[in-house]
Amino acid sequence: LRLPAQTWVRTMSSSDGPASPFTTLAISRPAESVTHVQLHRPKKLNAMNKAFWREMVECFNEIAEDQDCRVVVVSGAGKIFTAGIDLMDMAGDMLQPEGDDTARISWNIRKLVTKYQETFSVIEKCPKPVVVAVHGACIGGGVDLITACDIRLCTQDAWFQVKEVDIGLAADVGTLQRLPKVIGSRSLVNELALTARKMYADEAKSSGLVSRVFPDKEAMIAGALEMAGEIAARSPVAVQGTKLNLIYSRDHSVAEGLHYMATWNMSMLQTQDVMKSAQAVMEKKSPKETVFSKL
Amino acid sequence: LRLPAQTWVRTMSSSDGPASPFTTLAISRPAESVTHVQLHRPKKLNAMNKAFWREMVECFNEIAEDQDCRVVVVSGAGKIFTAGIDLMDMAGDMLQPEGDDTARISWNIRKLVTKYQETFSVIEKCPKPVVVAVHGACIGGGVDLITACDIRLCTQDAWFQVKEVDIGLAADVGTLQRLPKVIGSRSLVNELALTARKMYADEAKSSGLVSRVFPDKEAMIAGALEMAGEIAARSPVAVQGTKLNLIYSRDHSVAEGLHYMATWNMSMLQTQDVMKSAQAVMEKKSPKETVFSKL
Amino acid sequence: LRLPAQTWVRTMSSSDGPASPFTTLAISRPAESVTHVQLHRPKKLNAMNKAFWREMVECFNEIAEDQDCRVVVVSGAGKIFTAGIDLMDMAGDMLQPEGDDTARISWNIRKLVTKYQETFSVIEKCPKPVVVAVHGACIGGGVDLITACDIRLCTQDAWFQVKEVDIGLAADVGTLQRLPKVIGSRSLVNELALTARKMYADEAKSSGLVSRVFPDKEAMIAGALEMAGEIAARSPVAVQGTKLNLIYSRDHSVAEGLHYMATWNMSMLQTQDVMKSAQAVMEKKSPKETVFSKL
Amino acid sequence: LRLPAQTWVRTMSSSDGPASPFTTLAISRPAESVTHVQLHRPKKLNAMNKAFWREMVECFNEIAEDQDCRVVVVSGAGKIFTAGIDLMDMAGDMLQPEGDDTARISWNIRKLVTKYQETFSVIEKCPKPVVVAVHGACIGGGVDLITACDIRLCTQDAWFQVKEVDIGLAADVGTLQRLPKVIGSRSLVNELALTARKMYADEAKSSGLVSRVFPDKEAMIAGALEMAGEIAARSPVAVQGTKLNLIYSRDHSVAEGLHYMATWNMSMLQTQDVMKSAQAVMEKKSPKETVFSKL
Amino acid sequence: LRLPAQTWVRTMSSSDGPASPFTTLAISRPAESVTHVQLHRPKKLNAMNKAFWREMVECFNEIAEDQDCRVVVVSGAGKIFTAGIDLMDMAGDMLQPEGDDTARISWNIRKLVTKYQETFSVIEKCPKPVVVAVHGACIGGGVDLITACDIRLCTQDAWFQVKEVDIGLAADVGTLQRLPKVIGSRSLVNELALTARKMYADEAKSSGLVSRVFPDKEAMIAGALEMAGEIAARSPVAVQGTKLNLIYSRDHSVAEGLHYMATWNMSMLQTQDVMKSAQAVMEKKSPKETVFSKL
Amino acid sequence: LRLPAQTWVRTMSSSDGPASPFTTLAISRPAESVTHVQLHRPKKLNAMNKAFWREMVECFNEIAEDQDCRVVVVSGAGKIFTAGIDLMDMAGDMLQPEGDDTARISWNIRKLVTKYQETFSVIEKCPKPVVVAVHGACIGGGVDLITACDIRLCTQDAWFQVKEVDIGLAADVGTLQRLPKVIGSRSLVNELALTARKMYADEAKSSGLVSRVFPDKEAMIAGALEMAGEIAARSPVAVQGTKLNLIYSRDHSVAEGLHYMATWNMSMLQTQDVMKSAQAVMEKKSPKETVFSKL
Repeated sequence: LRLPAQTWVRTMSSSDGPASPFTTLAISRPAESVTHVQLHRPKKLNAMNKAFWREMVECFNEIAEDQDCRVVVVSGAGKIFTAGIDLMDMAGDMLQPEGDDTARISWNIRKLVTKYQETFSVIEKCPKPVVVAVHGACIGGGVDLITACDIRLCTQDAWFQVKEVDIGLAADVGTLQRLPKVIGSRSLVNELALTARKMYADEAKSSGLVSRVFPDKEAMIAGALEMAGEIAARSPVAVQGTKLNLIYSRDHSVAEGLHYMATWNMSMLQTQDVMKSAQAVMEKKSPKETVFSKL
Repeated sequence: LRLPAQTWVRTMSSSDGPASPFTTLAISRPAESVTHVQLHRPKKLNAMNKAFWREMVECFNEIAEDQDCRVVVVSGAGKIFTAGIDLMDMAGDMLQPEGDDTARISWNIRKLVTKYQETFSVIEKCPKPVVVAVHGACIGGGVDLITACDIRLCTQDAWFQVKEVDIGLAADVGTLQRLPKVIGSRSLVNELALTARKMYADEAKSSGLVSRVFPDKEAMIAGALEMAGEIAARSPVAVQGTKLNLIYSRDHSVAEGLHYMATWNMSMLQTQDVMKSAQAVMEKKSPKETVFSKL
Repeated sequence: LRLPAQTWVRTMSSSDGPASPFTTLAISRPAESVTHVQLHRPKKLNAMNKAFWREMVECFNEIAEDQDCRVVVVSGAGKIFTAGIDLMDMAGDMLQPEGDDTARISWNIRKLVTKYQETFSVIEKCPKPVVVAVHGACIGGGVDLITACDIRLCTQDAWFQVKEVDIGLAADVGTLQRLPKVIGSRSLVNELALTARKMYADEAKSSGLVSRVFPDKEAMIAGALEMAGEIAARSPVAVQGTKLNLIYSRDHSVAEGLHYMATWNMSMLQTQDVMKSAQAVMEKKSPKETVFSKL
Repeated sequence: LRLPAQTWVRTMSSSDGPASPFTTLAISRPAESVTHVQLHRPKKLNAMNKAFWREMVECFNEIAEDQDCRVVVVSGAGKIFTAGIDLMDMAGDMLQPEGDDTARISWNIRKLVTKYQETFSVIEKCPKPVVVAVHGACIGGGVDLITACDIRLCTQDAWFQVKEVDIGLAADVGTLQRLPKVIGSRSLVNELALTARKMYADEAKSSGLVSRVFPDKEAMIAGALEMAGEIAARSPVAVQGTKLNLIYSRDHSVAEGLHYMATWNMSMLQTQDVMKSAQAVMEKKSPKETVFSKL
Repeated sequence: LRLPAQTWVRTMSSSDGPASPFTTLAISRPAESVTHVQLHRPKKLNAMNKAFWREMVECFNEIAEDQDCRVVVVSGAGKIFTAGIDLMDMAGDMLQPEGDDTARISWNIRKLVTKYQETFSVIEKCPKPVVVAVHGACIGGGVDLITACDIRLCTQDAWFQVKEVDIGLAADVGTLQRLPKVIGSRSLVNELALTARKMYADEAKSSGLVSRVFPDKEAMIAGALEMAGEIAARSPVAVQGTKLNLIYSRDHSVAEGLHYMATWNMSMLQTQDVMKSAQAVMEKKSPKETVFSKL
Repeated sequence: LRLPAQTWVRTMSSSDGPASPFTTLAISRPAESVTHVQLHRPKKLNAMNKAFWREMVECFNEIAEDQDCRVVVVSGAGKIFTAGIDLMDMAGDMLQPEGDDTARISWNIRKLVTKYQETFSVIEKCPKPVVVAVHGACIGGGVDLITACDIRLCTQDAWFQVKEVDIGLAADVGTLQRLPKVIGSRSLVNELALTARKMYADEAKSSGLVSRVFPDKEAMIAGALEMAGEIAARSPVAVQGTKLNLIYSRDHSVAEGLHYMATWNMSMLQTQDVMKSAQAVMEKKSPKETVFSKL
């Protein structure tokens, strides 16, 4: 049905354009074990059209299975990260849902919203860490997307806008659920979601939405890839177990999180990676000098 | 039993004084769809007496039903926001609870505490966003109050104090439950609650307790009303659905929050407000130019 | 089996050295009702060996029962706070777990991890507030330790490192569960846990990991003891009820937290400490002038 | 606004008719500390009209506060227990909800359903045990009602019907939430709720819906009052603490339930009732010979 | 990729054999809106081979979307319902999992188990009620299957066996999670799961595992189809909303369940089905005389 | 401190009397891998005195670690199973708790109750299945005890009584938490807990409290040992994993339970026991012919 991940990734890496099997995403492998996913409708400001919502799911499901990928970088091609939902393309789904009765229309809308939520939840379900690098604007659906990523970086000129309230709806594909759990000020979360005001890079940094700000996109991509390289060099058993347990812990009490962690590690500590890593540490070697089996 | 909300609000708007049906709160309507609730016992530093605990519940239950109100601003009249609980007035309840046996006294205290908790929980249950504007001191019960609000603003001279430990008790009307969920530093929460030290505006801002600091009260009230105006101009279906889901998400896992959100929006997306708002966005109109039905 | 807590504490207070019943901890009573626990293997950079994991549990279980202790300060003796796990001493447990079959080895590892988790959970279960003061490095297990404490302080030269991923494992004794709940930026948490990069004092402060930074260790210990003194001077019923409910609230919804709080205080408000404290407040006395019964 | 509970109860006890302040309920005090609530629209087969939904809330809120009541018996006057919702009287609310837009209609329906849910949740929130005695038919809303009671009894001729699916809706005032938690066979619950078939007394007994079956109504009322007398004779601290913790435990894990229980009993065990009761047990006296203070 | 559900269903209905797109399931439409799914490897006693685990997911995902299906009956072709897992066919997956290291093998096993769990969870996620009819033996995986169905029926000669402990493993595709929630005796659940003893029809009935026992398979299938007909005749909005909320309630507190229910019905009560159904009830018509739109 | 488990067990097995290190329990090993724990104060009707509450914890903690034990049988020596709490011996703790202030007394009671809860929770935490065999009376604390066991058996002359309400308190060491989760009729649970009435063997069986009734004690002990033998003969990895996951599932949603199960089995399925057991099944051998390593 689809060529194995590696193939099209390699094809991609030379051109960096939309020759991939996707029409809205460009995939490349800029370094070993690192997959770069670009939102790639630059002429449309990477607005999220119907194809995008579907392709993200396919893309991250493949990445989840791709043993050659250990970490993902997400960025946007062109002028800005994303203008959010493509209202023109999506209007049919949103404004003329099927059904001959309020209950039946509701039923269909619910299925649709659930499907769209999956577009960003796949990022979270993918066991490989996802670093997102935002430049220019990140609007509406863009915030839903980045809050589902693990590490957020941005350029000095970036801004963020929880736009949904401006188009008459409560954001329903992740922002209201995840934003309060990724930044520390609930007052700010509420202000952003209720007024749709823009938040600029400095406030994004001080509020903890992003953990680093870079002067421009080039520096940011370099920084993101360097960080991705650091992660890719470490034991994938350790890295992916860390992501998975961090997400588990977010949604459970500390006691439940510890209990699950102990059950997780009862097998994972039996990996040869512990011995290899411990040896490297004692010999003061860089993690990059150690080779770990695929996972 | 009580005049309809609108009537007394209009009466209030001219005088801004205690002519309202309440003795500790002054209610006014400074702008369309905006209700301003002032703690109004200025000679007593807005200390929370028995009447206050009851009137807050009545007031916010009415606001919840008042279709002419879409957003609330809370502030304090006089020198400071509030000195907290009125120990003199409340001493009877707290120090001489009814009952002829430890178990029966306990039973009655529990009912009392539960009732007092409701005084601030009504703010959270009210589906309209509540912006609180703090000047001068915000002590003890004041912190319980503001942490139940949605957006927190303060003046440069404001300070905050979790005072309860100083009077021999663990804060029991909301601070210990909500403060850790509104600011990002648990070390700071614990320090404030265990030492009763004051926190000033700068730390309140950097810790995320407030999302904006203003030079003085006048500027703050203007800022609060402007922000309230922004919120009031948007679709009440979108705004109130946003508040409600933000609170739901705080108390549930991300997966549960998303599931609830999809069920919520299966009907809410059928509102005409989406079409109206989308049109306004495409025509680059301000939200204030669009008229939404009451909710 | 063991001398009563007070005895060895007093012995300790003069010498401050390892004459205590513990080989890795030095215990002293620098002020009334304040217990100082020092990680005390300075020649080994306070690395956590087998004895340490056991002694912490014994130490905090005793402190929990010691009515003469109302607050604890934890710090590290020598050059740094702690180098984390003592790989050499622990290697046997971790790398050669017992069992003749993967399932049986897993079973034993799970018991071991659960036991080690208890080493830091005792800090949380101890009803007395724990202030931790970090200087120099705080690595690996050190982060697990400090995130289980209530208040975190550090010196200007301190740095923190979630080291586990470097030795091939997902941190399993608390960091992944508690770090996201003590600081506000999830992006930062993930970055630290996935890259094992160092975080310095300034970022520790701005992210909320610590609530105060001191110029050097001497100033920090003085500051920690002063803060401990403030806490020790207040009603132990209020202080310990506050700690206990803050932890309960972290792991429950706001509604559940309030419900539990009301049930807690139905008896605790019957303490004489409320009257004593209220009187002291009205008479503008310092809490230190009031004497509270032991708890 | 309303006469104190005792007054009208006494008035009631002679006539047993609708002279109470309620039009759909008849209240009496057949024995000390026992309140008997009868569904009392016998000509309408005790169908639940608008007044009923409101009066139940008022009635049980009063009972909750009435220190002279320690246990409640609920039964139906006339031919059957209840025919369920009074479709004619309720049709307006259900079929023509207010609002000029699907979202606004939904908003109002949600408020309405939430209000109606309260009609039966008050039974659960009332700390006094409620014994319900069913004869003849118990249809639709009747099942919602009885599943919120604590103990269920019926006559040999009783039958039960989860009727809602027959009128085109999923039961929304309690049956779907409580029925699976009061009987042990999920297959049976699903069959009843999805097919609306009748269940007769024998199956109600064998499935555990009722714990006793009586030959006729007279015997059942006598049995219910005898059981109520047994409960009323015991310490109200013990009885009401038991009800409250049984309900808490239903909705929490065993560990959470035990934790809450310990916190509950830390004050409740200080009651004089323990000593009184223990003495009576040792002296082999009946609980009815011991007098307990009101609660 | 696949013919629309109706087509192959119609093909099936004449022959009732394996001409469907599935090799282990035979699908037919014995009556309007009723889909009959037969486990159909009669020569292999309907043992669950690799194809079965995959086909169940495909089958129920299609049924979930098939608007012509409102209720499902599941039964087994041939001598018995099912012999459970096909050890021969599955041995490779279970006994030789991929991976060159304990951690990596564990990782792969976890993915496999999660995939197999989905085979029965699809029954629960399918919004249409599923009636399962068991004759002869229902062993191992068969119990996992039937506990995920909504209504369970069996013949007098049926027996059930939680077999997994006999092959050295804790049942991991649903029995341990669902069996305790479908029957009322925990002692019995534990006995069955720990000893692998057989349970016969009478005990299955008295324990509530099944809600009806029939003399033989023919009578049972007739009974199952009649019950399915009753369900199919009712409003699909009511029926499917009932299933969905019954499952939601199982996994939440009563308060959470009620809250969700109110949010669910705020749109679902706007269906025309309520009016149609209410009218039919008042006119004493059978539900079968009313036509409801598809859902 | 104590002889290894095996030693005293062997000593016990000949005499079956109180020569064990315990004064209230007699321990024996009636068959390989089976430990028999008898409540052994026959002259005091096995009333639970102070020593008992402590010894149960020690006993089950040892059993949990004893690799020679795979299953436990609990029964009572003498005339009845147990008369429940030994009021005389316990009166001091319960009626004269330490503390000079209501809050401090409460604090101490809470520690005491928590400690006593542990007495029965150890049964649940012990990974080996516990079969309890009840003859004669099982009163008060006895019900707390048996509801924490996995499988319940009784003689025809057995009766059960939730006695606590008779001595003025809500049962606080497990009955209110566990009884509703072990039997299917909530009406019956409430009736038993609120009226303290006796329940006889037949109702215990029909309600699901016990899963088997035997004519007399001798037959019951034989039956319990036979059942224990069946369990002991199976893979301890399978058996103990089953117990552990059944308890986990009770306290979590089905989805959470499945998720945990998959994580549990990712290592446990790697046991050699699966291959050994599968082979035995194919060769139609009894489980007793297969030897499994200790766990």
